[in-house]
Amino acid sequence: MLSADRIMQRCDALARESELPGGLTRVYLSPESRAANELVLGWMREAGMQARVDAIGNVVGRYESDASGRPSLVLGSHLDTVRDAGRYDGMLGVVTAIECVAALAEKRKRLPFAIEVVGFGDEEGVRFGTTMLGSRALAGTLDASTLEARDARGITVREGLRAFGLDPAALGAVARRKADVLAYVELHIEQGPVLEAEGLPVGVVTAINGFSRLRATLRGTAGHAGTVPMRLRRDALAAAAECVLAIERIARSDPDLVGTVGRIEAKPGAINVIPGEVEFTIDMRAPRDELRSRAVAAARSEVQAIAARRSLGCEIAPIQELGVTRCAPWLMQQLARAVAAQGVRVLELPSGAGHDGQAMSALTDVAMLFVRCKGGVSHNPAEAISGEDAGIAARALLHFIEHFELRG
Amino acid sequence: MLSADRIMQRCDALARESELPGGLTRVYLSPESRAANELVLGWMREAGMQARVDAIGNVVGRYESDASGRPSLVLGSHLDTVRDAGRYDGMLGVVTAIECVAALAEKRKRLPFAIEVVGFGDEEGVRFGTTMLGSRALAGTLDASTLEARDARGITVREGLRAFGLDPAALGAVARRKADVLAYVELHIEQGPVLEAEGLPVGVVTAINGFSRLRATLRGTAGHAGTVPMRLRRDALAAAAECVLAIERIARSDPDLVGTVGRIEAKPGAINVIPGEVEFTIDMRAPRDELRSRAVAAARSEVQAIAARRSLGCEIAPIQELGVTRCAPWLMQQLARAVAAQGVRVLELPSGAGHDGQAMSALTDVAMLFVRCKGGVSHNPAEAISGEDAGIAARALLHFIEHFELRG
Repeated sequence: MLSADRIMQRCDALARESELPGGLTRVYLSPESRAANELVLGWMREAGMQARVDAIGNVVGRYESDASGRPSLVLGSHLDTVRDAGRYDGMLGVVTAIECVAALAEKRKRLPFAIEVVGFGDEEGVRFGTTMLGSRALAGTLDASTLEARDARGITVREGLRAFGLDPAALGAVARRKADVLAYVELHIEQGPVLEAEGLPVGVVTAINGFSRLRATLRGTAGHAGTVPMRLRRDALAAAAECVLAIERIARSDPDLVGTVGRIEAKPGAINVIPGEVEFTIDMRAPRDELRSRAVAAARSEVQAIAARRSLGCEIAPIQELGVTRCAPWLMQQLARAVAAQGVRVLELPSGAGHDGQAMSALTDVAMLFVRCKGGVSHNPAEAISGEDAGIAARALLHFIEHFELRG
Repeated sequence: MLSADRIMQRCDALARESELPGGLTRVYLSPESRAANELVLGWMREAGMQARVDAIGNVVGRYESDASGRPSLVLGSHLDTVRDAGRYDGMLGVVTAIECVAALAEKRKRLPFAIEVVGFGDEEGVRFGTTMLGSRALAGTLDASTLEARDARGITVREGLRAFGLDPAALGAVARRKADVLAYVELHIEQGPVLEAEGLPVGVVTAINGFSRLRATLRGTAGHAGTVPMRLRRDALAAAAECVLAIERIARSDPDLVGTVGRIEAKPGAINVIPGEVEFTIDMRAPRDELRSRAVAAARSEVQAIAARRSLGCEIAPIQELGVTRCAPWLMQQLARAVAAQGVRVLELPSGAGHDGQAMSALTDVAMLFVRCKGGVSHNPAEAISGEDAGIAARALLHFIEHFELRG
C-alpha cells in the first residue's frame, strides 16, 4: 500500500541531514550527503531492491524484472540541495519512486522490465558550480575536464570523489548503454505557480525549457559625481539600467518567455564616483528554442543600441546555452493516462527550471510528472506540498509503472 | 620672482611620496604623508616662514606681518590624496601659496597682516571615511566622536594620531579664534571642464555646491529565474533600474544639478535568481540649496512611486547633507581684480567638488581661485595642468595678497 504519510516523513527525515541545523543545505559529496545516501540505501533495500552508491556518488536501487537482466525503466531525481533549500525539490521524486517499488514488492509483483531508482548525487551544482554531475555521468556525457572543477576551498571534483571513498577511475562504468535503458521518468515539484492556479495536484511536463546565459559589460568613464555635468557623462550604470528594463520588456513580450538580470556590479562603486564600468548577467528561457533565440538576439541588439546611444563600449559574451529538452510523446501519453486514472484533469505544462532529464535525454527518452507546490515557491525553506497531493502523485506514478508499455 | 617651473617641480616631488611606486596614493597619517610634510616644512622655511606640524597633522607656515601678532590671511589646501590620484588636487594650492610667500620674502616685503599657509592633513577622507579632518580641527568644528572613526584595519583617528607622534589631548589648541583670522583663500584645480571650455586659465569660485547623500533599499521577492512568470515577479533590480533612470532624468532637468547613483548591490546576486533586494546610493548636488532639496524630494517620491507600482517595499535613508558654502563677495571682488590684472577675462563659476573651504567657512569668510585642468579630469593619474596656467594662477594669487584689503 502506498503511504503518503511515509513519503512526507521520509522527506522530513532527509531534511534533517543538513550542513547546519535549522535549515537545509546539503551539497554534493558532503558528510550530510553520505548520511542522506545511507537513509536512501536503507529504504531501497527495505523495498526489495538491490542498492549501491555508484562511482559518481549516485544512489542506485534495482528492482529486478520477471526475468533477470532485462532493460530498466529509470525513475528518480536528485538528493543534493541548494543553500537554505526546501525539502521536496529532488527528494520527493526519489522517495516516491521507492514508495512505488515498495508497493510492487509488497504485492510480490514483478514486471517484464527492471525498475531502477536513482538518487542523483549532484543536480544543483552548488558545490562545484557545474550542474547535473550525477545524471551526466549516467548518461555518459560527463567529460574528464569537469572533474577538474573546483569548489570554494579549491578541492576538485576528482579529489572530492576520492575523499568520499569513491574511485574516479571507475567512472566509465557509471555510464549506461542505451540498450539497457527504456526511459527516464522523473517526478518533481513544479517550482512554479501554474498547477496551483489551475487547482490541480499534478501535471504532465511537455518540455524542459532551454536557457541562454550571457554576461554584458558596459564601459563608460568614471568621474567626480560633483564636477562632471550630466550632459558630459558616460555613466555605465545609467546605461545598464536601460538595459535591465529593455530585457524585462523583451521577456514580457511573450507569456512563454522569462528573462532575468540576476547579477550586477558597478565599478568603482563609490557613492561619489560616476560608475565607469558595469557588468551584468542575462538569463533568458523559453519552451521554444526559436523564441529564446529571438529574445536573446533582441536583448543583444537593445544593449548594443543603448551603449551606442550613450557612447559606451559594450561587450556581450555567452556563458552557457542549452536547447529545449522535449519530453517523449509516448511517455507523456502514458503519464496522462495515469493522471486521468486518478480522476484528475490532465494539464500539460513546460518546466521553467532545469532537471536531470536534460542530461538523461542524451541516453534515453525522458518524461516528467509535476506536483503542485504552495505559492510556486522553491529554493526556499518555505517550499511546501500537501500530503494529499503527494498521495495522488504516488498513485499516478505507480499506475504509470504498472501500465508501462514499451514504444512500438 | 615667482617660478611656475618650481611650482610644477614641487608638485612632481610631492607625487613621488606615494604608498606604492608607479602611482600616487597618500592617505592621512601615513609614512608617505610624513615625507610630504617634511618636504613642505622645508619649502616653507626656505620661503621665510616659521613652520610646524599641528596636533591634527596639518603643516602650518606663518609669514609674520609688519608688526608681530596681527591676524592672518590663511591660504592653503590639502596634502592627502585619493587612491590612484592626480598630483595637483590639493598640492597645487599649497605649493603656489608658498611660492607667493617666497616672492614676498625675496623682496623683504611685509604686509599689515600675517600670512599663514596650511597644508591640510586630511581632506579626501580616504583613510577614515570622514572628510576634512584637518580643516574642521582648525575651524574648531571637529567633534570628539570623529576621533573614534576607524580605518580599514580598525585603527581609530586617535590611535593614528598617536602613532604619528601627535598628541590628541593638544587638539583643542589647533582651533583658531575668529579674531585671529581674516579670511581663508584656496587655490585649487577646477576638477571640471568649464574653464577649459571657456578657454580661460583661472576662474573665481562663487560657491561650493551643497550635497545630499541617501541610501535606498528596495525589497521584492527572490525567485527562480526559470519558473516565475514575468507578470508574477517582484524584481527589485528592475525597479532599481527605473529609479536610476528617474534620478538621471531629475538631475538633467536643470543644468546646475548633478545626480549620481554610484553604488548598487543586488541580492542574492546569482545569475539564475530574481533579485529580491537591491540597495543603491544617491548623490545629489547643486549650487542652490532649494534646487537640491527639490531634486532630492523629487527623487524620493519617484523611488517610492516606482516601488509602489511594482509592489515592493522601499526605504530611503539620508546619509549626509551639507548646504551650499557661499564664497564671500568682498573676497571674490578682490580675486576678480587680481585675475583681471593678468589680462584674463573674469569668469565666475561654482565648485561641484567639496573643498576645505566648506569646513573653514565656520571660522571665517572663504574664497577660491580655480585653475584650468586638462579635460576636466581629476581623481585620476591623468589629471594635468599646464605650467603656463600655474604661472598665471600664482601671479593672480600674489596680486591678490599684495592688494588684499580688509572688509569695511
